[in-house]
Amino acid sequence: MRLLNKDLRLQDVTLIYVILLAALVVLLVAPYHASSPFSSFPTLSPSPDGSSRPSLSYHVPLDPAGQLELCWNISYSKQEVYMELRVKELPYGLLLGMSDRGEPTNADLVLLWNDGHKSYFGDAWSDDEGRVTLDSQQDYELLDARNTPEGFSVLFRRSFSTCDPHDYIIEEGTVHLIYSILDQPIRSLHQLNVSRLHPGVQRILLLRPDTPNPSLPQDVRSLEVLAPNVVIPDQETTYWCYMYQLPPNMPKNHIVMYEAVVSSGNEAMVHHMEVFECSPRMDFVPEYSGSCDSKMKPAKLNACRHVLAAWALGAEPFYYPSDAGLPLGGEGSSRFLRLEVHYHNPLHISGRRDSSGIRLWFTPSLRRFDAGIMELGLVYTPVMAIPPQQHSFQLTGYCTAECTHTALPPEGIHIFASQLHTHLAGQSVRTVLVRGGKEVEVVQEDKHFSTHYQIIRILRKMVTVLPGDVLLTKCTYNTEDRVKVTVGGFGIMEEMCVNYVHYYPRTQLELCKSHVDQDYLQRFFSIINRFHGGEGCSCSQTTVEDQFSSVIWDSFSARVLDSLYTTSLISMHCNQSTAELFPGSWEKQKIPEVLAELQPSMRACEPSQAGPQNRPTEVQPQHSG
Amino acid sequence: MRLLNKDLRLQDVTLIYVILLAALVVLLVAPYHASSPFSSFPTLSPSPDGSSRPSLSYHVPLDPAGQLELCWNISYSKQEVYMELRVKELPYGLLLGMSDRGEPTNADLVLLWNDGHKSYFGDAWSDDEGRVTLDSQQDYELLDARNTPEGFSVLFRRSFSTCDPHDYIIEEGTVHLIYSILDQPIRSLHQLNVSRLHPGVQRILLLRPDTPNPSLPQDVRSLEVLAPNVVIPDQETTYWCYMYQLPPNMPKNHIVMYEAVVSSGNEAMVHHMEVFECSPRMDFVPEYSGSCDSKMKPAKLNACRHVLAAWALGAEPFYYPSDAGLPLGGEGSSRFLRLEVHYHNPLHISGRRDSSGIRLWFTPSLRRFDAGIMELGLVYTPVMAIPPQQHSFQLTGYCTAECTHTALPPEGIHIFASQLHTHLAGQSVRTVLVRGGKEVEVVQEDKHFSTHYQIIRILRKMVTVLPGDVLLTKCTYNTEDRVKVTVGGFGIMEEMCVNYVHYYPRTQLELCKSHVDQDYLQRFFSIINRFHGGEGCSCSQTTVEDQFSSVIWDSFSARVLDSLYTTSLISMHCNQSTAELFPGSWEKQKIPEVLAELQPSMRACEPSQAGPQNRPTEVQPQHSG
Repeated sequence: MRLLNKDLRLQDVTLIYVILLAALVVLLVAPYHASSPFSSFPTLSPSPDGSSRPSLSYHVPLDPAGQLELCWNISYSKQEVYMELRVKELPYGLLLGMSDRGEPTNADLVLLWNDGHKSYFGDAWSDDEGRVTLDSQQDYELLDARNTPEGFSVLFRRSFSTCDPHDYIIEEGTVHLIYSILDQPIRSLHQLNVSRLHPGVQRILLLRPDTPNPSLPQDVRSLEVLAPNVVIPDQETTYWCYMYQLPPNMPKNHIVMYEAVVSSGNEAMVHHMEVFECSPRMDFVPEYSGSCDSKMKPAKLNACRHVLAAWALGAEPFYYPSDAGLPLGGEGSSRFLRLEVHYHNPLHISGRRDSSGIRLWFTPSLRRFDAGIMELGLVYTPVMAIPPQQHSFQLTGYCTAECTHTALPPEGIHIFASQLHTHLAGQSVRTVLVRGGKEVEVVQEDKHFSTHYQIIRILRKMVTVLPGDVLLTKCTYNTEDRVKVTVGGFGIMEEMCVNYVHYYPRTQLELCKSHVDQDYLQRFFSIINRFHGGEGCSCSQTTVEDQFSSVIWDSFSARVLDSLYTTSLISMHCNQSTAELFPGSWEKQKIPEVLAELQPSMRACEPSQAGPQNRPTEVQPQHSG
Repeated sequence: MRLLNKDLRLQDVTLIYVILLAALVVLLVAPYHASSPFSSFPTLSPSPDGSSRPSLSYHVPLDPAGQLELCWNISYSKQEVYMELRVKELPYGLLLGMSDRGEPTNADLVLLWNDGHKSYFGDAWSDDEGRVTLDSQQDYELLDARNTPEGFSVLFRRSFSTCDPHDYIIEEGTVHLIYSILDQPIRSLHQLNVSRLHPGVQRILLLRPDTPNPSLPQDVRSLEVLAPNVVIPDQETTYWCYMYQLPPNMPKNHIVMYEAVVSSGNEAMVHHMEVFECSPRMDFVPEYSGSCDSKMKPAKLNACRHVLAAWALGAEPFYYPSDAGLPLGGEGSSRFLRLEVHYHNPLHISGRRDSSGIRLWFTPSLRRFDAGIMELGLVYTPVMAIPPQQHSFQLTGYCTAECTHTALPPEGIHIFASQLHTHLAGQSVRTVLVRGGKEVEVVQEDKHFSTHYQIIRILRKMVTVLPGDVLLTKCTYNTEDRVKVTVGGFGIMEEMCVNYVHYYPRTQLELCKSHVDQDYLQRFFSIINRFHGGEGCSCSQTTVEDQFSSVIWDSFSARVLDSLYTTSLISMHCNQSTAELFPGSWEKQKIPEVLAELQPSMRACEPSQAGPQNRPTEVQPQHSG
C-alpha cells in the first residue's frame, strides 16, 4: 500500500505498527468536509480501541478554540521529531512555524496549502517582514496526510538541526510555535505574508527527557487540589487563587508524583497552574476562591509562596526520583496550600465552568531522601540593573565554592529538576556547573525563555553538585523597548534572575545567590558620570535607583557596567532555611573564575547538504482498493 | 588482494588507481630495515615512471633533517583529508598531531606504534600535561601501511570535523602540526607523554582552494629572483636579504604567476621567502647579499617594503585570476627588488650552500585589469593597545562605508587573495565583509594565526566589495606572558593588525584603516585612574605609551579599554596611493554597526556518534602471493 507518493522511511516501531494497523482498515469513506480541497483525501477509520490516532506521546492544543492540535514524538537516537497536526476543519491549508520568541518574522515554517487546484507540502521561512520563501533545502518530510473522523491530519518529521540557515534549531527549552489555518487558496507562496496572517502563538517544551518514569509505590494515595466550579472570567488573562487545607495533623508523607487535572473541554484555556505552600509560621489562612488580583483577596495569601508543584500546558506528570519524595504534612510544614490557575481566554468565552487543579500522589512510606528546592541566581536588589536599549545584556548570579563547601554534604546533592524565573525582559537563562575552574555540565539552559512559560522541568540527566563546586546562573535580557534603566526587584517591570533547582537529599541550604559589591558600584557611578562630563557625585543620600536613573546610558556606559558586574567583587547570600547566613565570610568575595567554557557538540555542515528534495511535495489523495 | 585487515573504503579515484597499480606489482622484497618491527611489511615497488608515491597533491617536509614528510589530498565534497606520512626510517612508530598553537598538550593525535610484539594504529589525544589517551571514537581511518624504496609510508584519512571533543577541527587557515618518531617500543600508551617527547612543530595550510588554476598565456616569460650561492649560516634563524635589479627601462608587464625555487636538499631549511619592491622615488639602491639584521646592510633597503610575492613552506604556485596581473616594470615602478629568505637551521648545519628564491612568470600582453594590494586593519599607532595578562583581547580595524563609497568604482573590486599580519602576540585574524549592517561573507579567517607563517593565501571564493560596504579586520592577542601593556607600532614587541588584500581592478585606495579617537582615549585614562583611587591626571605632556604604562591593569580596566575601543568614535585613514587622504571627513566617525553576525554552518552531533570502530587497529603486514 502506498500512503503517499513518497517512500515511507519511518522506522519508529510504534508508529509503523499503528499506521499499518490503521492503513489496513482504511475505507473509502465519503469526504468529511465536502467543501475543502482536502476532502478527497482518504479517511482513517477508528481503530479497534475507538481511537483513530497513532500513539504519539505528547500533544498540546494550539489555538484557544481547540481547532488545532499538535501531537509529537522524539527520537534522540536519530535526532528527529515526528509531528502530527490535527485540525477539525481544513479550508485551504495550514501553517506551523518556530521562531525565536513567537514572532511571525524570521520563522522556520512548515506549510500545507492548496493553490485552487493542487495541494502541496513544503519547508519555508519568513523574512524580516514576514514574506514567505520556500527553503532551497526541504527538511520537513511528509509522512502522511488524510482525513480522520475528527477532521484532517498531517504527519511529518524533521531533524533537530538541519544545516539550513533558515531553519530553527530544535533544542531543549521553550519553543515558540506559531500557527495559522489558511482560509484562502494560496496561488503563490510569494503572496503569503505571515505577519499579515496574525498567527497564534503557543509555547511548548518540544524535547522531553527520554528516561522512563519510576514506578509508584503500592500504597500511593492521591489528593486533588482543585478550585471547584470556577466560572472562568470572560477576559483574556485571569490568575485564579484558591485556598486548600490539608487535613489537620497530617503526618509527614512524601509526594512522589503530581499531575494536572483539567476539566474536559477547557484544555486550551487552562494555561498553567501552581500549588504553593503557605509559611509554616502562620497558624491560620482564610478560605478564598477568586482572582489573585482582586482587592478582596486576603493579604495573608501573599505569604503562600513556597512552590510545591507547577504545571503548564503540554507538561507531563512530574515524577520524583525513585529514592526521593517531597515532604507533605508533618512538622515544620503548613496545612494551607494556595492553588493558582492561569486562565487564558482571548476569545472572551463567557460562562464556562472549570474545576481544574493538580493531583498530588503521595505515600506514607517515606522514601530514603527528602527532596528540597534551592534558589540559585541573583539576589532581588536594585544594585543589579540592566541599561535601557540593550539587545542582550547579561547578568550572572554566583553560587560560590565557599558556599557549596560549607553547606553541602560530602557526597553532594543531585539536581533532578529546575524551574527558571525572570520577569518580562528575560530572554534566556542558563545554569552551568563549574568544577576546578572548568564548565563541566549544563544544569538547564533555555535560549527562548519566556516569563509566561515557567514550568518545572525534569532534567534529562541528573546533575551531581559536590562541595567546592560553583553554580553560575546567567540571564540574558532585552530592553530595546525601554527608555529607562531596569533594576532588580519584585515588580514585573523590575527584573529577577533565578533558578529554583529541585534536588535531594535536602540540605539546610535554602538559597545560594549573589550581587555586586556596593562599594564597587559606587565607584562605577563616580567614573561614568565623570566620563560624560559630570562631577561624579557620590552623594550617599540618593538611592541606587536614582543613581542608575541619572546615568547617561550610551553603549559605553552599558559596557562599563557589564565590565563591573563581570570583574568586581561580589556579596554572597549563602542562606540556611532559617533565612540566616551560614557561618563564613560572604562579603567582598572574588567572582569565581571560569577558565574553560563548555563547547556545544557540533560538526561542520557539508557544503551542499541537499535534503531529500528541494521542491515542495505535491500532496495527492491515495486511494487504496 | 587485502592491503590490510581492514576494508578499503576509499573512493578517491586517483588514489585507488595508484594504490591498485602499486599493489599489482608488489613484490616480496627483503625487509629494508631489518631491525625495525615494521620491516616485515611489504615493499612498494617503483611505478613505471620511477616514482613509488601515490599522487597526493600537497606535500611538506616536517622535520629540519628531512626524515619525515607529509603528503595529502582534500575532498571538499566528502569533507575529508587523506594524509600520508613518509618516513626514511621507522624504529617503533610515529606520532602526528594537531594542536591550537603547536603545543604538545591538548593535541589531537594519530599514532602508529609497536609494543614490542604487535603494531597498532590509532586516534588519541594528549591532556593538559601531555599524557596520551586513546579516543573513545576512532576518527583516523588507516588505509595502508607499507615499506617503500625510500622508507616507510602510512596512509589514512579523517573528516574535517568529527564530533569528538578531543579532536581538532580542520578549518581553513594555519594548522600547527606536531610530529615525533618513536624510537622505543610503546608497551602501553598510558606511559607515553607527548610533552616529554619534545615533538617538532610545522605550520601548514592543510586546506587549499579547490578551484583550478587559470592557464598561462602563450607569451609568458620568467625571471628568477634568487640569492645566488648563499652559505646558510649555522644559526637557527637567518633572514637573508638580496637586492635584485630589473633590466633598465623595462616596460610594464603583468606578473601572472609566481612560484618558489628551492635548492635541492634544502627543502626543510628554506622556511619562507618574500620579494619586495623598493620605493619608486629612490633612483638607486645599492647591491647587497647578506643578513637582513647585519649592521653592514645599507639603510636604503628599508625602503623596499612593498610586497610583490610571498611564499612559505608547503605553499603552491600563486596564480593571478585570468583577467588580472600584477604590474612589473613601467612607469611609477621601481627597478629594485629585495628578496628576503628565512632560513630555519635548528640543527646548526654548517657550510650548506643555497640559491633559493622566487620565479616570477610575466607577460607583456597586459591583461584587462591591474591587480592591486590594499591594507586593511589598524593604523600603526600606540593609541591601540593590549593590556597585559590577557588570554584573548580583541582589536578591530574598520574600513568604513564612507571610505569604500568614496574610493571604490561602482562595480566594486574583487578580493582574490589575502595576507594576514600581526606581531608576536597575534593569535587569530578575521576580515569580514559587512553590507547593510549584516556580516555577509568572511574574506579570510585564521583561528591559529602565527606571525611566523605569513603567506599570501588565495581565497577559495573571490569576495566582491561594493561602494558602501564595510570591512572589519579583527585581531585577537594573547599577552598572558607579558607584565607590561603592549601598544601598537612597528617593533616586534609592539603590535599590528593588518590584512593585505590582493584585488582587482586596482584603485587609488592604498589603505583603509582606523584607530580610536584620541579625545576618547584621554577620557579613558582620566576615569580609569580615578576608579583606582588616583586623580585622573590628564597632563598632556606625557606620551600615550606613558599613560598606558601608568594604568593599573586589572580585569576591570582591561574590559573598560575594550568597551572604549568597541563603542567610542574612530579616526579613519582612507588613503590614496600618494599617501594622501581622499577628500572627506575622517575624524570622529561612528564605529560601523553590525546588527547580525555570520553564524558558522554547524549541525548538532548525534548523541552516540561511534566511529567505524572504537579500538586501535592492529596493523599486520599483508603478503600477497
